[in-house]
Amino acid sequence: MKLRDLGELGLIARIERLAGRVQGSRVVLGIGDDAALLRPRAGETWVWTTDACFEGVHFRFGPEPPARIGRRALTANLSDLAAMGARPVAFTLAFAAPPRLDAAVALALVRGAVAEGAARGCPLVGGNVTRASETSLTIAALGILARRERALLRSAARPGDRLLVTGRLGGAALDRARLERRGGRPRHRPEARLGAGRALARLPGAGACIDVSDGLLADLRHILVASRVGAEVRLDAVPRGRGFEAACRALGEDPERLVLAGGEDYELLFTVRRGAPGAGALARRLGVPVAEIGRITDRPGLLRVLGGRPGAAAARGWSHFGAR
Amino acid sequence: MKLRDLGELGLIARIERLAGRVQGSRVVLGIGDDAALLRPRAGETWVWTTDACFEGVHFRFGPEPPARIGRRALTANLSDLAAMGARPVAFTLAFAAPPRLDAAVALALVRGAVAEGAARGCPLVGGNVTRASETSLTIAALGILARRERALLRSAARPGDRLLVTGRLGGAALDRARLERRGGRPRHRPEARLGAGRALARLPGAGACIDVSDGLLADLRHILVASRVGAEVRLDAVPRGRGFEAACRALGEDPERLVLAGGEDYELLFTVRRGAPGAGALARRLGVPVAEIGRITDRPGLLRVLGGRPGAAAARGWSHFGAR
Repeated sequence: MKLRDLGELGLIARIERLAGRVQGSRVVLGIGDDAALLRPRAGETWVWTTDACFEGVHFRFGPEPPARIGRRALTANLSDLAAMGARPVAFTLAFAAPPRLDAAVALALVRGAVAEGAARGCPLVGGNVTRASETSLTIAALGILARRERALLRSAARPGDRLLVTGRLGGAALDRARLERRGGRPRHRPEARLGAGRALARLPGAGACIDVSDGLLADLRHILVASRVGAEVRLDAVPRGRGFEAACRALGEDPERLVLAGGEDYELLFTVRRGAPGAGALARRLGVPVAEIGRITDRPGLLRVLGGRPGAAAARGWSHFGAR
Repeated sequence: MKLRDLGELGLIARIERLAGRVQGSRVVLGIGDDAALLRPRAGETWVWTTDACFEGVHFRFGPEPPARIGRRALTANLSDLAAMGARPVAFTLAFAAPPRLDAAVALALVRGAVAEGAARGCPLVGGNVTRASETSLTIAALGILARRERALLRSAARPGDRLLVTGRLGGAALDRARLERRGGRPRHRPEARLGAGRALARLPGAGACIDVSDGLLADLRHILVASRVGAEVRLDAVPRGRGFEAACRALGEDPERLVLAGGEDYELLFTVRRGAPGAGALARRLGVPVAEIGRITDRPGLLRVLGGRPGAAAARGWSHFGAR
């Protein structure tokens, strides 16, 4: 069955069923009216983000199962909440697709987002569907910070801070390269680092934080600009998966480029003050692997990559429209 | 200059400047980090909606100035807040466009939304930009209801309720028809009925409410389904603008169809209990013209149009994907 047969109201009714009865303690009313209703508790800060996932840009049908695409669309938003230290509350989904799209594919996209939301305590509470010439999912997500939790701002890095990153980098870019060249199924399954972000928001001595969505250096630059500082990154300290270099060589990919500029790893890149716990202690506290990869300097905007090829620091991450 | 020359970061920087320093009393942090931060007051209910505006579906470049398109994209969201009785707090914008789009046009689209937001107390606090094959603006908006205000639900209509509508209907559809046939500039300027919605949320005896975005009968059907009631509408009581019939005839349009099924008027369609004030008193209270156009019956799902052509009640409003 095509979307044109299911129709707008048919699709909305199916999505409503997928969303189910919303359980979130702050959600008063989910899908089905002009807007969703949420009731915050006193003293909370609400954290609000939006991110889009477009066919031809962020995904292609074929190599990637639709449910995984939907899941990834939500993960991009949850990762923004994680990078602020917030706990998710709910999300809305604006879905667009051509009438010729299989209704089963449309519903699998939505189901993937809803399932990921259910797993991360973030129910679907509203949305919109529209006809368009290509398929897209535009999500907005709300999270909260409790009274005593501090938002992890990009602007909070200071000279002398240590620079750290969770997990491993370059894996998502390697997976995309493999799919493009060899086909098969995606192996990389990025997850928003929600628990780590929340632990960081409660850590005395935490500095700036951002999620690695566009690539390590591109996202680090956002911290440098917002905090008016510089940074040094030790290339050999940037964590990558087991067999990463060999896999890159086999595909003819440059491992340095994938590690520094590959996007969508959704790891957290953050700084801590000099006296904060070491990487091992931080890893235990955050519940994920943590590696120290460099430091923040007092030279605004200057980014040095130690151990990289000359010009490595100029590596560009993902950019829409082409230019930077 | 094209978007490909301005680049993603260039566009974001310009949008940040357009948004300016955010003044909203509940906004702690606007554009520039992973997410926006908002701080609610105790006892408030937050009202959250999302709506998309796509090239080729909701607008075409040419007849309509880009700033007006952006303004309309926000109005669709504000109208959802109005239909819940909420006061707007802030909005996020997910912007998508092809790299060949003129940067000036892209910025005019955003400026239109930001200007409308400024006029209605709803600042831009975050967003996303992405490459896509067609231009679209997907907005999410948050509003609030104070402790003593009641959300205006679609499900709150009861048999015996009187059915009313603000303003005039069919004008937006007539304007679209005129633009298609004759060209020229749009004349109709729909506004979200925020003040009227808030007044209604404080009115004892208020029932259900929805905004007329898809067309009078299509939106009335949402109330009937959610409230499990029926309705009778008196066609001759449905308010239309001065000279509406003559203008329709001149364009070869059917006035009955435009009034019953024309969308995007963004008027409020609502019910009140039998004992509530009359239309004149309601108009004074809501601060806008109000007309009584029918009543709610105890026959679930049954919609009768009195004075219309046979089959008038079957008139369809706007529907994506084609089917209903």
